[in-house]
Amino acid sequence: MNAVSEARDHAVDSSPWSPREAELLEVTLRLLQEHGYERLTVDAVAATARASKATVYRRWPSKAELVLAAFIEGIRHVAVPPETGSLRGDLLRIGEKVCEHARQHASTIRAVLVEVSRNPALNEVMQHEFVDQRKALIHHVLRQAVDRGEIDSAVISDELWDLLPGYLIFRSIITGRPPTRRTVRALVDDVVLPSLTRPTR
Amino acid sequence: MNAVSEARDHAVDSSPWSPREAELLEVTLRLLQEHGYERLTVDAVAATARASKATVYRRWPSKAELVLAAFIEGIRHVAVPPETGSLRGDLLRIGEKVCEHARQHASTIRAVLVEVSRNPALNEVMQHEFVDQRKALIHHVLRQAVDRGEIDSAVISDELWDLLPGYLIFRSIITGRPPTRRTVRALVDDVVLPSLTRPTR
Repeated sequence: MNAVSEARDHAVDSSPWSPREAELLEVTLRLLQEHGYERLTVDAVAATARASKATVYRRWPSKAELVLAAFIEGIRHVAVPPETGSLRGDLLRIGEKVCEHARQHASTIRAVLVEVSRNPALNEVMQHEFVDQRKALIHHVLRQAVDRGEIDSAVISDELWDLLPGYLIFRSIITGRPPTRRTVRALVDDVVLPSLTRPTR
Repeated sequence: MNAVSEARDHAVDSSPWSPREAELLEVTLRLLQEHGYERLTVDAVAATARASKATVYRRWPSKAELVLAAFIEGIRHVAVPPETGSLRGDLLRIGEKVCEHARQHASTIRAVLVEVSRNPALNEVMQHEFVDQRKALIHHVLRQAVDRGEIDSAVISDELWDLLPGYLIFRSIITGRPPTRRTVRALVDDVVLPSLTRPTR
């Protein structure tokens, strides 16, 4: 199996949840979008999914754990390498998906940032299940661009690997300026590509 | 009065607070750093500053309003144009100040993002007292760079004006990777300057 299909399979198939658990997480994500983090209750999730509260609490002992799991599960499907054949196409696709997801779930992201900062165990989950996968995806796309001769491997930076998703998430969680396709295009064409194709010593 | 001193005076002198009010906001910011947003109470602010609770509540009817006012007041002093004489110097200085401030107040920023998204009146204050001033500062620095012949005015983008502070704030409020001087240098030298000096049609 090559690196591409490995990355894709990892993203799609590695769900740690049973179909019933995945369904509970879907309900959670839907209720989060409708009502926001503050007004979500574990009881409402159980009622909507016609599950017993005990079932939900057994797997996710707190609302914060349930929400983080739902958020990460919702992202798993969009963490697939885009494989457009060009660096620009891949970056645009990743940027648009981040935008779409972060705009839909802005209130959840704000709440998750607060919860994760207070809870080292949640932070651990976030790092393993989300950050590491996102980083692998970006590095995969950049390595392909190196292989195609589009960029020099010297420009790949561990310091700023999350510039593209990070700025788009920032724009999604501040009020009033949700990022659009225009934002993504400007970010890719006027910032990220000039940076990745800059002369290096 | 020229634009430079106007921008500086605006930043430093435009505090809308009396000395006593400014003192209450300083206490608020100190308690926020020590205890975080969740554990801060308006009563504790009043007690620490030896003020009556009524005094505090009269000016800031809710904890969210008090905290936002304290946060903005704490930033006012760092919103002064750096005037280093070069675009690179100005951007590094701005980036370092954003870093320092955002790292110190990460928990407050996370809480403010949640409160502002739920409260249009708070959002209004945030836009007027914080976002607009930050934007004016960045545009001032870029216009000076155009005047010095360092960049072409065509590269100044309204879409991405907050890329530098936005990414650094993102890095400050996610856990585990607070931005450092190295982050700022990489962001300015490898991303922002290559973008601002890219060829334009």
